[in-house]
This record gives sequence, C-alpha cells and structure tokens, in this order.
Amino acid sequence: MNNLNNDAYRPIGLFDSGFGGLTVMREVVRLLPQENLVYLGDTAHLPYGNKSPEAVLRFALNNADFLLRKKIKLLMIPCHTACSHALDILREKLSIPVIGVIQPGLELLAQETRSGKVAILGTASTIRSGLYQSLLLRAHPTMEIHAVSCPLFVPLIEEGFYDHPAASLIAESYLGHLRGKIDAALLACTHYPLLKNVLQQTLSPAVKLIEPAENCALQARETLSKNFLLNPQKEKPAYEFYASDDPEKFRQFGKIFFGSAIEKIELKKNKKM
Amino acid sequence: MNNLNNDAYRPIGLFDSGFGGLTVMREVVRLLPQENLVYLGDTAHLPYGNKSPEAVLRFALNNADFLLRKKIKLLMIPCHTACSHALDILREKLSIPVIGVIQPGLELLAQETRSGKVAILGTASTIRSGLYQSLLLRAHPTMEIHAVSCPLFVPLIEEGFYDHPAASLIAESYLGHLRGKIDAALLACTHYPLLKNVLQQTLSPAVKLIEPAENCALQARETLSKNFLLNPQKEKPAYEFYASDDPEKFRQFGKIFFGSAIEKIELKKNKKM
Repeated sequence: MNNLNNDAYRPIGLFDSGFGGLTVMREVVRLLPQENLVYLGDTAHLPYGNKSPEAVLRFALNNADFLLRKKIKLLMIPCHTACSHALDILREKLSIPVIGVIQPGLELLAQETRSGKVAILGTASTIRSGLYQSLLLRAHPTMEIHAVSCPLFVPLIEEGFYDHPAASLIAESYLGHLRGKIDAALLACTHYPLLKNVLQQTLSPAVKLIEPAENCALQARETLSKNFLLNPQKEKPAYEFYASDDPEKFRQFGKIFFGSAIEKIELKKNKKM
Repeated sequence: MNNLNNDAYRPIGLFDSGFGGLTVMREVVRLLPQENLVYLGDTAHLPYGNKSPEAVLRFALNNADFLLRKKIKLLMIPCHTACSHALDILREKLSIPVIGVIQPGLELLAQETRSGKVAILGTASTIRSGLYQSLLLRAHPTMEIHAVSCPLFVPLIEEGFYDHPAASLIAESYLGHLRGKIDAALLACTHYPLLKNVLQQTLSPAVKLIEPAENCALQARETLSKNFLLNPQKEKPAYEFYASDDPEKFRQFGKIFFGSAIEKIELKKNKKM
C-alpha cells in the first residue's frame, strides 16, 4: 500500500452517446475488477454519428462535467465520434487523466496489418473528422488507408438487426469494394463489434477486425498503476449507470452490450434547453 | 379586405425533428402560396422516434418557443412523434391556433378504407403512445387496427437507402404479415412518403397509402380563413429555415423533401445544456 493515493477509491467515469461504450466497460470490468465505475449514456442526443462537430463537442463537455461531479479519478471516452471532436479539448481542460479509443485502436491496427493496406470503419462524423487517417499516416506514412463511413450500422445494431439479411446487403453496399484490398479493418465505432459476423463475411474471413476495447482497458490499468490510483478495496465494486433519456430502455438494451444485467440506473436530468 | 386581421402578415411556423416536415411544408407552399413560412428542423435532437415522451415534449416546447419569438400567427407540427406527445399541451398553452398531423391523417384513413381493416405505421415512440389507435377507435369503434412501429425507416430514408434492396427486406420484416389483411395504411411519419414504392410492393399495390400532408395544409387554410388571417400580400412570400445543428447538411438534404432549393437557412443556437 506504499504510495497509495487517497483518490484511488474514487470511481472511473465513462461516457458514450448510448450503449456502444458498454462493450469497453465490459473489458474494464474484466481487467480492473476492483474498480468502481460510473457510466453515462447520453441517450437524449443519440446518435452522435450524424451530428456536427460543434454539437458533439457540446455534448461531450456536458457529459464530462456530469461525471466530474461524481468525483471520478479517470475519464474514459469509449465513443469514437466523441473522441474525434472532444478528446484533445477534454485532455487540456481536465486535471485527471483522459483515455480515448483512438490511439489504442490505431496501435492495434498498425500491429496487425501485414500488407499495410487497412480500412477504418466509423460513423459519418468520425470519418469526416479525418483524425484517424491523419494520426495513422503520421505514424506510418506509407500505409494505404480506406476510410469508410457506415451511417446505417448504428441504427441497424440498435434495432437488433445485426443478423438480418438487410445488414449484409447494407454492408455490401458500404464495404464490398474493399474485398481483396485490405488485410485489417479498425472498427472505429463501439457498436460495430456486434456486426462482426456480417463484416467478416463481407470483407473476407482473412481480414482482421480490430476492436480497441481491450487495449483501452489495458491503457486505463497502466495509467492508474503509474499514478498509484489502482483501487485497493476488497469489497465488490459499485457500478452506477446514468442515461440522459429513457433509463428503462437503457437497462433492457444495455444488457446486450454489457453482457450482464444493469442493476442501478438513473435518469440524468437535462437542463431546459 | 374586410375584417382583415393585422396579424395576417405574420408568418406560419412549422417544426419537425429534421427534414420530414418539409413534405408538409411543400403542400402549404402549394395551397397557401401567399404565406410567409418559418421552418425549424431540430436536427440536434434527431431522430425523435426513439426518444422518450418526456424528451420529445421538452424538445417540442423549446421549438414552439423559438417560433413564437418569430411572431408566427399559426403553428403547424408536421411531425407525428411530436404531435403524439406535445400537441394537446401546446394547444392548451399557446394563444395561436395549432395544427397537427394526427387528425388530418386519421380522417383520410377512415374515408379511404372499405374493409375497416387498416394499418398505422410510425416510429417506435408514435406507436407506443397509443394515441392514433385510441382516437381512431373512439370515432370508429369496430375498426380493425394494426399499429406497427418501423424504427429503421427513418435512418434508411435519411441515408438515401429508400430504393435499396435492404429497404425491401426490412419492410418485409416489419410489414409482410399485414399483406392481405388491410386495405389502407396511414403513413404516420412524415419521412415515409419517400418509401412509398417499397411500402406499396410490400403491402400489395391494392392497399391505399395515406399521407396527411395535403389535408394538413387544407386545414391550415381553413383555420386561417376562419380567423381572417390569410395573408393578402402581393409580393413573393419569404421562406426562412432554421436547423438546430448542421444547417449546411439541412440545406443539401432538405431539398429532397422540400422539392425545391432551400435558400435562407440559419443555425438555431442551443443554450448550453
């Protein structure tokens, strides 16, 4: 218990536009089983992927503000659209460490490709930001990058159509032209892992599909450890969930992404806009 | 010009979550060509169809407030989800007449059915409200009503997939079981007219697809006329557009729904939430 920071008992905060970030939270639970976690799904503004950069930034600042009032020791942003538009600004503004999904995803992608020909799949807003493409090129200037926005994937997944033949047709429209041209694809949206089967079939079974969730959780563990912030508690950790709209739907639907029951969920009140 | 009300020169206000309401505005332009119009697309909160009743009501009150500051003489709500949760309350609160899409749609539906077996197609939120079903049953107690929520139609349309084979597959999942069971279907979402071909094929060419847009505009004309509020101006009317997010996207995309170019569009600023 040497060097234990008093803040170590505080929770980790995570936010996303809705449910997708729960796939990352799941990895945090697995790799950091003694941490208390607070998750905010900004369901009143879902989806972020078709909103403007300014709107996404405003939502992200508001979400961070809410979590800071929960006295978090580390902020994780398991949402690629929010990271695209707000990660740098939040890192600058906040006095606690902030972990996004961009770097962990790009590092894995670069590790896994053999041919140097890769795809980045994300929401319209994420792809339009150009951030993934430029960061990857800065580190690997000769890489051939195909960045494709797939705006219908999130609604298809949120409506439970991830195994529906329509999902395959839509995936073919978005991605069919990449078959044979890449050997790895970054799933730059936390929803997309639920479409893995369809994506694998569309792109070919040989293509590696990269999810940053585990890498993200590993980075969180490293950051906490370095700052003497790993929670030493022996008790069962507390998981709190908040949604800015329809917490009941969040409870029912979130289970699919989180992989276990969502027990404690509350409405985050919105100020009158 | 007898009895001309001084307020007659004021504009008509319309709001929707996004673009769908432009299909109604188009009819208003056709049937009331001398009226000034102000349209607000609440694109920062789009889509309304998967939000809770409380959230939709909050958005609607805020939109009405914005349009009232534009000194409108009549409010039209060409959005079925907003009407489902806010029409009564806005009628109670506002001192100007308010016209929705529910009554005009249900009246047409009742006129057009021969068998008394009908469908109501809408967003999850509209269908869950139960309002259309109960209003229709109150007026026609023996009608057989199939109310079906079709949550993927709005994103499919907004992404331009209305002619894509995936749209037919999804329509078949939602509506295939209605084939042979109904003779008229109310399109209780202002987006759905863009899916007309697919819906007609799925439900059978004999089924009448009911759109309330024209009826809505007729009702507006009647209300204005009764209140001596028809605009007597000889000049070309002014059409103003506002979007709460990404006005450029609104301009480009709105054209498809409005049928003509959107010239004057501004961002409606959101207060920090």
